[in-house]
Amino acid sequence: MNEMKSFELWPIGVIRSPYRESGEIPKGPGAKHDAEGVLELRSELEPGLADIDGFSHLFVVWIFDRSEGYDLTAHPPIDDRPHGVFATRSPRRPNPLGLTVVRLLRREGPRLFVRGVDMLDGTPFVDIKPYLSSVPADELRRGWIDEVETRTRR
Amino acid sequence: MNEMKSFELWPIGVIRSPYRESGEIPKGPGAKHDAEGVLELRSELEPGLADIDGFSHLFVVWIFDRSEGYDLTAHPPIDDRPHGVFATRSPRRPNPLGLTVVRLLRREGPRLFVRGVDMLDGTPFVDIKPYLSSVPADELRRGWIDEVETRTRR
Repeated sequence: MNEMKSFELWPIGVIRSPYRESGEIPKGPGAKHDAEGVLELRSELEPGLADIDGFSHLFVVWIFDRSEGYDLTAHPPIDDRPHGVFATRSPRRPNPLGLTVVRLLRREGPRLFVRGVDMLDGTPFVDIKPYLSSVPADELRRGWIDEVETRTRR
Repeated sequence: MNEMKSFELWPIGVIRSPYRESGEIPKGPGAKHDAEGVLELRSELEPGLADIDGFSHLFVVWIFDRSEGYDLTAHPPIDDRPHGVFATRSPRRPNPLGLTVVRLLRREGPRLFVRGVDMLDGTPFVDIKPYLSSVPADELRRGWIDEVETRTRR
């Protein structure tokens, strides 16, 4: 492959969250992600939020800015077996991108108040996208996650 | 905000899709996204795919590599009214990141055969993540998209 030009991302804002350390973030089967936070967009980008208020849910793409390096095999906290990094949400990925679905509660100018944050306070974000459709629950298989949930429920 | 350090992304592979030009990609209300394609991961990263086979759906984060510059206001093809870029999937965004949910059909080594591609052939991708849960349909509001669908259905 020779199309391997790199790309530069620049933070479009910063996320305010109640979490100061990664140990505080709920993890594992049944973890509730209902923490509230704020997506503080750079004020000069505010016109890009026009009409966003009509969406109940948003994707936020953000940077694991306090993670360094990566491993191809991850050891998720909820399982004692390793998994390929792309089958996990590990921060130690080849590109340190995070992705979270949040519920939009309200907007105040360039600030989006949301529920469902699972990133650290001060995390830079690089994109916001509308959440448009869901995969029906009966079509969803979740590999090792389902398997861990079955195992730990016993 | 002074935390505005930029980040470098490097493509971890290339997407094979049936689409050579953006005009060929289905758009608009009711557009079917059932085109099949292949995520060709760099072979040295293949260990990162361990256990991915158990997931029915994946998120692919990719680069709009044939888009240049951005606008804060987007004019989606399905509507005659402009919208804030973050309320659309426009390629002309501050960071040219694309996000697509695909269905995993099968894996052959570092190649993932998937359904639901909506990117151009040769598009570089930067991350793959497992799709873990859906927002229930009855909790979803889709702002101007719902409004266009209602208008065009008349």
